[in-house]
Amino acid sequence: MTPIDPDYLPISGLDVPRFAGLATAMRLPVRSAAEPQGAEIGILGVPYDGGTTNRPGTRHGPRGRREASSMIRMVNQATRVAPFHTARVADFGDAAVDLTDVMTTLTLIEDQVTAMMSAGVTPLVMGGDHLISLPVLRAVAKDEPLGFVHFDAHTDLSSGYFGKSQYNHGTPFRRAVEEGLLDPARMIQIGIRGTSYGGADRAFAVEQGIRIVTIEEFRARGLADVMAEARQILGSKPTYLTFDIDALDPSVAPGTGTPEIGGFSSFEGQMMVRALDGVDIVAADLVEVSPPFDPAGITSWTGISMLFEILCVTVTALARRKGRDVVICEDIPAPTWGG
Amino acid sequence: MTPIDPDYLPISGLDVPRFAGLATAMRLPVRSAAEPQGAEIGILGVPYDGGTTNRPGTRHGPRGRREASSMIRMVNQATRVAPFHTARVADFGDAAVDLTDVMTTLTLIEDQVTAMMSAGVTPLVMGGDHLISLPVLRAVAKDEPLGFVHFDAHTDLSSGYFGKSQYNHGTPFRRAVEEGLLDPARMIQIGIRGTSYGGADRAFAVEQGIRIVTIEEFRARGLADVMAEARQILGSKPTYLTFDIDALDPSVAPGTGTPEIGGFSSFEGQMMVRALDGVDIVAADLVEVSPPFDPAGITSWTGISMLFEILCVTVTALARRKGRDVVICEDIPAPTWGG
Amino acid sequence: MTPIDPDYLPISGLDVPRFAGLATAMRLPVRSAAEPQGAEIGILGVPYDGGTTNRPGTRHGPRGRREASSMIRMVNQATRVAPFHTARVADFGDAAVDLTDVMTTLTLIEDQVTAMMSAGVTPLVMGGDHLISLPVLRAVAKDEPLGFVHFDAHTDLSSGYFGKSQYNHGTPFRRAVEEGLLDPARMIQIGIRGTSYGGADRAFAVEQGIRIVTIEEFRARGLADVMAEARQILGSKPTYLTFDIDALDPSVAPGTGTPEIGGFSSFEGQMMVRALDGVDIVAADLVEVSPPFDPAGITSWTGISMLFEILCVTVTALARRKGRDVVICEDIPAPTWGG
Amino acid sequence: MTPIDPDYLPISGLDVPRFAGLATAMRLPVRSAAEPQGAEIGILGVPYDGGTTNRPGTRHGPRGRREASSMIRMVNQATRVAPFHTARVADFGDAAVDLTDVMTTLTLIEDQVTAMMSAGVTPLVMGGDHLISLPVLRAVAKDEPLGFVHFDAHTDLSSGYFGKSQYNHGTPFRRAVEEGLLDPARMIQIGIRGTSYGGADRAFAVEQGIRIVTIEEFRARGLADVMAEARQILGSKPTYLTFDIDALDPSVAPGTGTPEIGGFSSFEGQMMVRALDGVDIVAADLVEVSPPFDPAGITSWTGISMLFEILCVTVTALARRKGRDVVICEDIPAPTWGG
Amino acid sequence: MTPIDPDYLPISGLDVPRFAGLATAMRLPVRSAAEPQGAEIGILGVPYDGGTTNRPGTRHGPRGRREASSMIRMVNQATRVAPFHTARVADFGDAAVDLTDVMTTLTLIEDQVTAMMSAGVTPLVMGGDHLISLPVLRAVAKDEPLGFVHFDAHTDLSSGYFGKSQYNHGTPFRRAVEEGLLDPARMIQIGIRGTSYGGADRAFAVEQGIRIVTIEEFRARGLADVMAEARQILGSKPTYLTFDIDALDPSVAPGTGTPEIGGFSSFEGQMMVRALDGVDIVAADLVEVSPPFDPAGITSWTGISMLFEILCVTVTALARRKGRDVVICEDIPAPTWGG
Amino acid sequence: MTPIDPDYLPISGLDVPRFAGLATAMRLPVRSAAEPQGAEIGILGVPYDGGTTNRPGTRHGPRGRREASSMIRMVNQATRVAPFHTARVADFGDAAVDLTDVMTTLTLIEDQVTAMMSAGVTPLVMGGDHLISLPVLRAVAKDEPLGFVHFDAHTDLSSGYFGKSQYNHGTPFRRAVEEGLLDPARMIQIGIRGTSYGGADRAFAVEQGIRIVTIEEFRARGLADVMAEARQILGSKPTYLTFDIDALDPSVAPGTGTPEIGGFSSFEGQMMVRALDGVDIVAADLVEVSPPFDPAGITSWTGISMLFEILCVTVTALARRKGRDVVICEDIPAPTWGG
Repeated sequence: MTPIDPDYLPISGLDVPRFAGLATAMRLPVRSAAEPQGAEIGILGVPYDGGTTNRPGTRHGPRGRREASSMIRMVNQATRVAPFHTARVADFGDAAVDLTDVMTTLTLIEDQVTAMMSAGVTPLVMGGDHLISLPVLRAVAKDEPLGFVHFDAHTDLSSGYFGKSQYNHGTPFRRAVEEGLLDPARMIQIGIRGTSYGGADRAFAVEQGIRIVTIEEFRARGLADVMAEARQILGSKPTYLTFDIDALDPSVAPGTGTPEIGGFSSFEGQMMVRALDGVDIVAADLVEVSPPFDPAGITSWTGISMLFEILCVTVTALARRKGRDVVICEDIPAPTWGG
Repeated sequence: MTPIDPDYLPISGLDVPRFAGLATAMRLPVRSAAEPQGAEIGILGVPYDGGTTNRPGTRHGPRGRREASSMIRMVNQATRVAPFHTARVADFGDAAVDLTDVMTTLTLIEDQVTAMMSAGVTPLVMGGDHLISLPVLRAVAKDEPLGFVHFDAHTDLSSGYFGKSQYNHGTPFRRAVEEGLLDPARMIQIGIRGTSYGGADRAFAVEQGIRIVTIEEFRARGLADVMAEARQILGSKPTYLTFDIDALDPSVAPGTGTPEIGGFSSFEGQMMVRALDGVDIVAADLVEVSPPFDPAGITSWTGISMLFEILCVTVTALARRKGRDVVICEDIPAPTWGG
Repeated sequence: MTPIDPDYLPISGLDVPRFAGLATAMRLPVRSAAEPQGAEIGILGVPYDGGTTNRPGTRHGPRGRREASSMIRMVNQATRVAPFHTARVADFGDAAVDLTDVMTTLTLIEDQVTAMMSAGVTPLVMGGDHLISLPVLRAVAKDEPLGFVHFDAHTDLSSGYFGKSQYNHGTPFRRAVEEGLLDPARMIQIGIRGTSYGGADRAFAVEQGIRIVTIEEFRARGLADVMAEARQILGSKPTYLTFDIDALDPSVAPGTGTPEIGGFSSFEGQMMVRALDGVDIVAADLVEVSPPFDPAGITSWTGISMLFEILCVTVTALARRKGRDVVICEDIPAPTWGG
Repeated sequence: MTPIDPDYLPISGLDVPRFAGLATAMRLPVRSAAEPQGAEIGILGVPYDGGTTNRPGTRHGPRGRREASSMIRMVNQATRVAPFHTARVADFGDAAVDLTDVMTTLTLIEDQVTAMMSAGVTPLVMGGDHLISLPVLRAVAKDEPLGFVHFDAHTDLSSGYFGKSQYNHGTPFRRAVEEGLLDPARMIQIGIRGTSYGGADRAFAVEQGIRIVTIEEFRARGLADVMAEARQILGSKPTYLTFDIDALDPSVAPGTGTPEIGGFSSFEGQMMVRALDGVDIVAADLVEVSPPFDPAGITSWTGISMLFEILCVTVTALARRKGRDVVICEDIPAPTWGG
Repeated sequence: MTPIDPDYLPISGLDVPRFAGLATAMRLPVRSAAEPQGAEIGILGVPYDGGTTNRPGTRHGPRGRREASSMIRMVNQATRVAPFHTARVADFGDAAVDLTDVMTTLTLIEDQVTAMMSAGVTPLVMGGDHLISLPVLRAVAKDEPLGFVHFDAHTDLSSGYFGKSQYNHGTPFRRAVEEGLLDPARMIQIGIRGTSYGGADRAFAVEQGIRIVTIEEFRARGLADVMAEARQILGSKPTYLTFDIDALDPSVAPGTGTPEIGGFSSFEGQMMVRALDGVDIVAADLVEVSPPFDPAGITSWTGISMLFEILCVTVTALARRKGRDVVICEDIPAPTWGG
Repeated sequence: MTPIDPDYLPISGLDVPRFAGLATAMRLPVRSAAEPQGAEIGILGVPYDGGTTNRPGTRHGPRGRREASSMIRMVNQATRVAPFHTARVADFGDAAVDLTDVMTTLTLIEDQVTAMMSAGVTPLVMGGDHLISLPVLRAVAKDEPLGFVHFDAHTDLSSGYFGKSQYNHGTPFRRAVEEGLLDPARMIQIGIRGTSYGGADRAFAVEQGIRIVTIEEFRARGLADVMAEARQILGSKPTYLTFDIDALDPSVAPGTGTPEIGGFSSFEGQMMVRALDGVDIVAADLVEVSPPFDPAGITSWTGISMLFEILCVTVTALARRKGRDVVICEDIPAPTWGG
């Protein structure tokens, strides 16, 4: 089976070594909402950390993951999916942002994602801090509230500062619920832990019917059981996936602004995303990677590796919607090793 | 339910951002043995690494954890305990030490902890290397031998150099047993592993009846079973808790002097400490955090996060002794998010 | 000659080792505008990087310098000045800031510095990014435009984004001139270099009569000649000193947001500040130290060392205004070495 | 029971502190193939990364592990084995290599390992990149194809570039099978994961009958079950063990050229090696440690710690072949603690 | 005066913040030899370190400089030159290389530079190690031997290993002289220092009439005098400029394979390059930047900043050859500040 | 002219690449006082930081410099001296030290240097902190007080703590003067700067007639003038040279315990040592290199590079005493390049 479009295969390590050439996401071609050229899935950077309340640096996150992404290859060995053979995936560069103004930035991001949506491109977003999920949701949930699967150490359901901005990286999903972008009955948050300010965010969750799975519950029940519940909650309707890198343990992902000990291993991260096979993912993001706090570079690498997993389930959902077969490893004419 | 004393609540992120202000432990008020002002639990730094036989740097450990501790918030989400609402906790600064003289330093530390004890303050100590547990024990076990729960990669039960100093970070608990500070029948060491010099330390343990749980036994039996045994061994009498950060895996805590691979995850660390709920913890320490070997800063952060867990069980024990209710999350009037 | 007030001497290394204790600026006592307790000079942190257009992190700058400042001792060996014996200097903590709102933050900073001024305290400010100089100037130049001596790689005289915020770290001194806070005829900028956006900032300088000394002119003429001109321009009236750490070479100060190669050595930095002896410094700042980009910690150390030099000339100016003698090294009763 | 030869005991921490003296592997004596002086097992560095297709640096790997190896002590606490008492182990320095020529280097390495074999010395090799296993196998499998137990994220069974070199770090075991150095029926690869170029390497494995255990299969079945299968496959005939440090998770071993998330913990690494007790290990290597990508040094430390485990099973196999008892911890006259 | 072509202006910080977007060299458009689209100067990466005899990593050099280059702005403040307004400059990506074969790589690089030359594009090359200058010279010196100005700590005039490869990063200019690519009478090497293997390289220089200026001679005579001599030696005929980053001091450029103490400051580097104004630079390179040894990132930044200086003199020479005016700062319509 | 002894030439990069093999100092053979085998100059590590009052880590200094020293080659290009051809130089390993006891350590070091002296070996010592110079002086100044040339930011002439240890890294030369090991009239200290505790150390210097050259005086007069004075003070009698790496600027040598800004460049360091040609250096040390604070490794490299300069003047002095010619570069049969 041939790839859906040879122009959308990543540059081979045979042609350009992995450390060479311009660093596009996963070595994919560059497209834009104005000239999508048939792209179906667009990896979009949102280099904004103006919603960060403590350690900044996620504005450098998209570039850090692009650089690391050269090590991504063609096929997901675990699921056998060949995403770049199945759908046209491209790098859509970085969204314009205005670091001096939160409200302007929210509009800029929403507009750009809306333009992608209008061009028929599914957004796969690299943050930036978690606030950036809000304008993405505004763009993708225009028609109806979405289901929501959320991997994170924090609920990000806070109400905000008294008398101050309602928009920072601790509040996006409260805003999203209030704005009707998400359907509380189809929301699940997994991995919640760490110290907290009190119970206000959980009280809101209880009140709204949002399902919170703490890391303690997760470990007591096991991954398979929790993810089965997640699939049941999400159902078959359109769903947004958001992955905060601080869901993972600080040993795995030190390069982030608000790490919490006791987190997931990267294997668990992978298995949880794979367990979403069958869910109708219509957009997704992976946020809070902060290169200045990542001296060994493993957070950028882990971030882009997780994004590859998210890409695979997104591609699968897209293929299902389009009635297209998923190309798998065994379908590809024997490639040689490309360094 | 109101906090026991509003003066003892950490500075809110609403008032001072988490990266700002003087770095006191967990943003708590500063007190001293001379002027305790009602403080019940005192976090005391002991910046001494004169007992270290290989890589130094734990003298910088208390400051490293104070800096990281700004990210600690009010409530333990897993246990629901609100320690700062339940008891008056304060930063007691750093003990005086004399890097040029071990014996003088042992006396200095003992005197300072004794002064805290006399002022009715329960010490929660940040090392320094593990030798500093010895003078702390001398101060807190003045009346009777204590029970002892010890998380570590090493037994620290060595006899010392032939004809050389008996006091270094491999010997404190042999000394403590010899001095009658600890009750061998109520001692348990958990996480022991790595290469060793031979069997002398274990022979001493066997001879004294000290329980050693290696990491291999721990993994074979599981955390719940081991910790049930720990609670049974410790019983209801006064107990000292000591946590060497090298109990954790080097991936979790690289910034330490004598790392050993194959260690605990931070989640296991948290769960083990929480499993001590009900034990009568009367003093505790967390030692061997070495900032110069911690380029990503995760060891300081993990260290202070573990100290928060230790604080919570210590506060709970204190409340039990004082016949006071433990304030939990749900008791606190809905706080807002503080960044 | 005794110190002006023993309560204002830094904690001795004899009493507390330099790596121990709470990290206050230069180990000085902590005061506030509300309770100045006689303090004459206040070191104030302004942990704000919301005006930063590229690499963030200066919000962590005040804490980084406090930590490093433990290595500062009592006397300036080069000038013989004993600043802590001559004037009451204290750590005034960090100004409140609001990372989500520039305009609010500008007001917050101005208010806090105004409060210090009202309490008779000369502010010595640790940024933050360079935008923070603007609100400080608003507070200290309430009565008349000040003279201005500015060490920097950049003029910070830009007009701002078209139709966007006028307030970021490239614009503060254009705003200050426009607002009448600075007297263009008494302004000199030293060390300007690097690539630029064009000549607009320099055109403004020419138009206003602001003196710009590029690094090339500096090296061609020599330090003594340039600083003689600076003293002539500044004259005897009140003057503000601002030192952007990126005036120094990136080898000396890598931890900053917009480094430019070809900068000053730290020795030149010291000699330039010392050459301001006789100028009536009424307030000063040292900005743009960014710990996340400073793996070896030398930028924080260099930053606080330069602040000590600035303190010495500020203390000298204050003593002159108050008709007080400057205490020098030889006046101090023979101290012993304090580690 | 006395050590087999006191000259082969590591230098004690009593005599030379662990941070002092020349950094030989595990503080062992230095020997050479020309003058083995009775050595039975030789730790040989092969500082070559000319087979590396992306991030280089493993040429610095042997030195990095020698430096870290000072922290290795005498006895394996988990298995009780005292390897240096049981067999004569020495540091054989580094093999000559020629970074400018792959083919020459392959010959140089083969010759040096052959010389060791001729001198009756079992090689324990520290890479270098994984290509270096090929010439080692050429030297040790001269008589018959060996069994092969392989811990890695990658199969290293690629065919090579079209029309380009057949020899790089993705191809060694395909070459080894083609050259008859390994017996496919006695080969097992454990931990395979990550993205891949397609299915060619697995197709080769299937065709040859090589057993691949992916990380997903490993976690589904459990360590004990997988290792039982491994022992069954390997049987009682001579076996080569190769451990690529990237088998471990990037959080455990960031300092490597091609990390893949979702890997083994170091505890699992230890347990898998220990589970090879009874297998006839005749030579082994541990490869792909790259110090330039290891800022906290934990990869070098983990690498040498794993090599110690490999040494213990190799010593045990050697003792079995020689009809010699394995000295264990309890056999050693009570040593004192050596810092 | 308008820019020569608006399509060749770097992306403005007004449109895309400096930390955002794909990292092309100096934010320039991407072109290729096949489709040069009018480009006159091409920045070409050559990510090859196969000629490196000690610490590798320069294969990552082009990407490191592209990332850092976002901080380069439009105008050289010291010389007033606006290079992007004066000539069409573009990023030509990275040359193909084959890490497994030196001879193939030499041919690949030569072919690619030849293609650029054929398309009328002046190459500005980012190494890689210094060996890569040889194939570049083969491409650009096809017609006649070139003049040669060389900034370096090492002469790179060695003869090579006995009986081994003649091609590594210590030999390129001996080869170039032997091949008639350089005119010895028009060669000058500046900054030579450090320990050496003996006098063979200098003997060759003396024999050929190549001028070597050691760092000691440089400091004794001064920059102006040495550079006047350089201009006199180079004359008005075509000249190649090569800048090894290790010409600079290790404090300025730690991220390189063979640092030598006692080197140039970056200011001296800038002034030396500017002093070549008037020399007919026809091609140039800047080599030996090694990101894995550059934790603070200052070497990449210094490298690209120096390349900007080299670009400015190259553009000036090109304008002179083409009879075109050099656009300077004052010619540009007042730009605003772009962050 | 042949080398004095081929056994004493460093291992060539032709035979073993510079990153390979055991890391002996400058790749020299290993000797001991017990079996000097004709060695005339012995490089001895003293890995002791028990005299350090703030940031520790110099115990790792000798190993750090051995590792870096692989990049040292055969000849000093500036002075033409070939030290390894002129005298038999060897690595004498590390002195035994006892980190738990200062007084014991002082005796251990003195004994070991005395043994070297008795074996006719000139000691060239790598610290450790500066206290270690004292026992070295006790060993080498047994017969008469020595002249003393001292490069440092600090005088190290403090009297010590009141009522506390007289022996730490701030006191060695006061002790040495008091013990009659140094002749005050033949002492010069160069580079003194930074903040101080007061004037007690300088008062002692004045009283004793010790010459202190501050960095400010140095820069005002120039290197040549200061070093001429140094030679005049030192005269022709036996002299000890001590070089504290913190004499150099923190940009050059960040990896040290008590950095002071405004220091020497490494070029100045080299020129000052070379200016001692003609002085009768009988022993020397280079101290205070602290690898844990040296993330880019440049301090270890600078340290060993400076030690090479010190070696060259020491070899020259030795040759003069022995009436032997100094072998220079031009005397060596044309070597080839060795990588």
